Amino acid sequence: MFVPAIKGSGTEEQQKKWLPLAYKMQIIGCYAQTELGHGSNVQGLETTATFDPQTDEFIIHSPTLTSSKWWPGGLGKIATHAIVYARLITEGKDHGVHGFIVQLRSLEDHSPLPDITVGDIGMKFGNGAYNTMDNGVLRFDHVRIPRDQMLMRVSQVTREGKYVQSNIPRQILYGTMVFVRQSIVADASSALSRAVCIATRYSAVRRQFGSQNGGHEIQVLDYKTQQSRLFPLLASGYAFRFVGEWLKWLYTDVTQKLQAGDFSTLPEVHACTAGLKSLTTSATADGIEECRKLCGGHGYLCSSGLPELFAVYVPACTYEGDNTVLLLQVARVLLKTISQLGSGKPPVGTIAYMGRIEHLMNCRSKVQQANDWLNPSAVLEAFEARAARMAVSCAKNVSEFANKEEGFTELSADLVEAAVAHCQLIVVSKFIEKLQQDITGRGVRQQLEALCAIYSLHLLHKHQGDFLSTNYITPKQASLANDQLRSLYTQIRPNAIALVDAFNYTDHFLGSVLGRYDGNVYPKLYEEAWKDPLNDSVVPDGFHEYIRPLLKQQLLTARL
Amino acid sequence: MFVPAIKGSGTEEQQKKWLPLAYKMQIIGCYAQTELGHGSNVQGLETTATFDPQTDEFIIHSPTLTSSKWWPGGLGKIATHAIVYARLITEGKDHGVHGFIVQLRSLEDHSPLPDITVGDIGMKFGNGAYNTMDNGVLRFDHVRIPRDQMLMRVSQVTREGKYVQSNIPRQILYGTMVFVRQSIVADASSALSRAVCIATRYSAVRRQFGSQNGGHEIQVLDYKTQQSRLFPLLASGYAFRFVGEWLKWLYTDVTQKLQAGDFSTLPEVHACTAGLKSLTTSATADGIEECRKLCGGHGYLCSSGLPELFAVYVPACTYEGDNTVLLLQVARVLLKTISQLGSGKPPVGTIAYMGRIEHLMNCRSKVQQANDWLNPSAVLEAFEARAARMAVSCAKNVSEFANKEEGFTELSADLVEAAVAHCQLIVVSKFIEKLQQDITGRGVRQQLEALCAIYSLHLLHKHQGDFLSTNYITPKQASLANDQLRSLYTQIRPNAIALVDAFNYTDHFLGSVLGRYDGNVYPKLYEEAWKDPLNDSVVPDGFHEYIRPLLKQQLLTARL
Repeated sequence: MFVPAIKGSGTEEQQKKWLPLAYKMQIIGCYAQTELGHGSNVQGLETTATFDPQTDEFIIHSPTLTSSKWWPGGLGKIATHAIVYARLITEGKDHGVHGFIVQLRSLEDHSPLPDITVGDIGMKFGNGAYNTMDNGVLRFDHVRIPRDQMLMRVSQVTREGKYVQSNIPRQILYGTMVFVRQSIVADASSALSRAVCIATRYSAVRRQFGSQNGGHEIQVLDYKTQQSRLFPLLASGYAFRFVGEWLKWLYTDVTQKLQAGDFSTLPEVHACTAGLKSLTTSATADGIEECRKLCGGHGYLCSSGLPELFAVYVPACTYEGDNTVLLLQVARVLLKTISQLGSGKPPVGTIAYMGRIEHLMNCRSKVQQANDWLNPSAVLEAFEARAARMAVSCAKNVSEFANKEEGFTELSADLVEAAVAHCQLIVVSKFIEKLQQDITGRGVRQQLEALCAIYSLHLLHKHQGDFLSTNYITPKQASLANDQLRSLYTQIRPNAIALVDAFNYTDHFLGSVLGRYDGNVYPKLYEEAWKDPLNDSVVPDGFHEYIRPLLKQQLLTARL
Repeated sequence: MFVPAIKGSGTEEQQKKWLPLAYKMQIIGCYAQTELGHGSNVQGLETTATFDPQTDEFIIHSPTLTSSKWWPGGLGKIATHAIVYARLITEGKDHGVHGFIVQLRSLEDHSPLPDITVGDIGMKFGNGAYNTMDNGVLRFDHVRIPRDQMLMRVSQVTREGKYVQSNIPRQILYGTMVFVRQSIVADASSALSRAVCIATRYSAVRRQFGSQNGGHEIQVLDYKTQQSRLFPLLASGYAFRFVGEWLKWLYTDVTQKLQAGDFSTLPEVHACTAGLKSLTTSATADGIEECRKLCGGHGYLCSSGLPELFAVYVPACTYEGDNTVLLLQVARVLLKTISQLGSGKPPVGTIAYMGRIEHLMNCRSKVQQANDWLNPSAVLEAFEARAARMAVSCAKNVSEFANKEEGFTELSADLVEAAVAHCQLIVVSKFIEKLQQDITGRGVRQQLEALCAIYSLHLLHKHQGDFLSTNYITPKQASLANDQLRSLYTQIRPNAIALVDAFNYTDHFLGSVLGRYDGNVYPKLYEEAWKDPLNDSVVPDGFHEYIRPLLKQQLLTARL
């Protein structure tokens, strides 16, 4: 985040000076935003950068304990420089949070510079995961930096200490945000499909119950209970990949629009990227743990690769915007869109469906038999109607409060649900759009169509309360969706292994004994066990001092 | 499990001989059941115990790689003896799985006895958790043990090698199972309420957003989004405690019945304990991780206590019966109960409500306004009707298959959902029963009533699809339940801290900086960070060898 921050917020001169140093590793930068007391509320950061016109310097200071920078990756032991986010104070006025380049450690002996306290914040979740990263703590005691180390692309402080804003619109910073979130969605697809690949392959190797006449037991992958938990995750891995690819296109599109000074789509792009970040990371974190459970006891071994994958992944639900906070931002855009309906400003992009609100509020599903649910337009309308009705219902309930902001706060749990419905619609619609494009090979298309239907119908089943309570479907239609889902599982089963092989992950990348391509799980699990250092000695250290006296009832004379 | 296994399956002489040794720690026992290739399917275990009448011994043997014992706790480095579960073979016939006491290591020097291979299976989830336990691997190469080391309470092998069964009914073994599962449910309550205590206290300390006129920001605990995720878990902590207490009573009751030779309630007791084990452990594992997320970024630090709590807890979803497998067992009992309705054998205990099936299939909720949902009988009927209708619908669908077993397999995902509905009903009904007992203090009762309503109505909201699709409630009534839930959150909020303080956990037991009783979170987090060994030196090891040459562009001459 050091480089994107300078790219996004630095002037051309700053980019010319600092980026080559960072790229050549002559300095090691970190991004110091979060503090002990403030994460989500960036505007509440407490570190100050007070301009001193006498010396043409900023004084960077940590006025409280909670203003200590906390979490920045690479800060604890390694970074030489940081982009420090601090409240800019000049001419006695607080101008809010801005970025400053601050050197932290000597380039000669790496010792912290004077008046800087810096260290590591300690152990984190898992035994590997982010414990290989020196997330750090950082405090400043009136540290002075030259004025030109403020990132001045958007706002400047003059030699005299005047705060001025350039004519570069602040909105261009959104480009970086879209880029970062797009890569998070792509990562979600990658992490989830890794876990799914491990669990699917192992479920084909693992057999349990159902042996008849001394034959093989049943492959765990053949159980409907396993399929109903695993195949929706397989479908999600594909769904997130396609929506991630689409987000890459969106990033290019929004960058071009921003450069042309067109900010009209920004609220929608903001809602869409915030929502997809939230949706995909939550589903992936839960999905990895579900895959671990689907591997039974052996999934609990580190050699399964799943504990590490989980511990590395879960912070994605919190960083770059807490997932619940992001959904509330989506909800705000939805409410605003609804309030502007009929104003002659039709909703765009992923919210465009709201333009058909009258139809969506009144239509009913026309599904009559199970396989009617294979019709993409039947599914799409269901998700549109559900999302629209939930959002409209929230808007109506909020409007009944005298104070709208109070209403928003009071109903925020419902608003989160409406935002989820909207985001699920985006993923479903992008999956369907993908299938309308050229896809090489007829067999491939069939499989992707089945996965798309599984993704959609498992959500419909899981959230059937939403669809039923908004009267879009009847209980009978809900039940037909469930029937169709079951037959889709049967349909996808013979290709399940091929569909995870298609991710093309090497055994090295998977890092899992259970997910080996060759399926040679048990011998390798056995081999792996003996590599544990505990097995270097047959009789464990301490036996003679502690255990033998215990066994021999010589406790009193033992050193215990 | 070594001691309970001998208590349950050993003869009186075996109990007299082995239990004192185990209690006095003159031997250290472990329970060796699970194998590399078999966990859930105990009847599929492959280790053999072949009787040799010539020497009056059993030959314990691991015929395949997958027959290696795998997972037993304490086995890896410490145990001197094990109860080994193996297929009893005598007179050329396989009599299925029985228990055998086998010495593994010398009591003098702790080395493995001849023809025994034993070791640790390696690292597991988390950095502490079960890594402090030496889960082990064990193989036998024709190891001989005396005949009297077979646990012979229920079945015996005579000196001549005849397999005979005593007149002690096998069902008495269920007593041990009920005891173990009851303690798992009690542990679930304890683990979940620990996590809830940490998250609730920290949510009162943590403030974010909403500062007006320079005042304090809003306590995170005041946000409805936080409340709607946290308070149902708080309520679950209480609910699981009460159902755990009731299970203790059930254990006493079933023990008395078994001793009196009354096995009539066993199927119901089995379903009930299996289901509650599954329900409470799944909810607790998910709940701990949810509490961690509710603590934002700081929840990811080990000093929060939550990563460790999670890693220690999650295996409970798999051990002592995989949670999905257990729910299918519940479903079987439900289907059997339904098939016997009207046979003059009325369902008992927690399934007694099925006796009122006609009413439950046809009744409709009478709720007209939000606070009608505070009426326990309105809630109870809703959960009974939902559980009954889902089970009956499954029974009907299964019966449409020519082969019922095929139908059961094909519809197993639906059956799992029906089983969950049944188990949630049990927890709800036991919470309601608890409130009908004497509770000291009027204020306490009010709070518990609110928690009971939160527990029930959050489930009703989460699973509203079940209630709606079975036509017990209307969308309007579902919405009223949600309104009531929201106002219950407001009602419980002022007492949230008192309700977690009431668990009476010491800071030492909680092991969490975030969950400290005194709320002094930030100074202690800061203090804790500096204790990390990485902070023992200011400049990290390796700086001069690796980092400095990098910074100075001396890569070619560096040792990297």
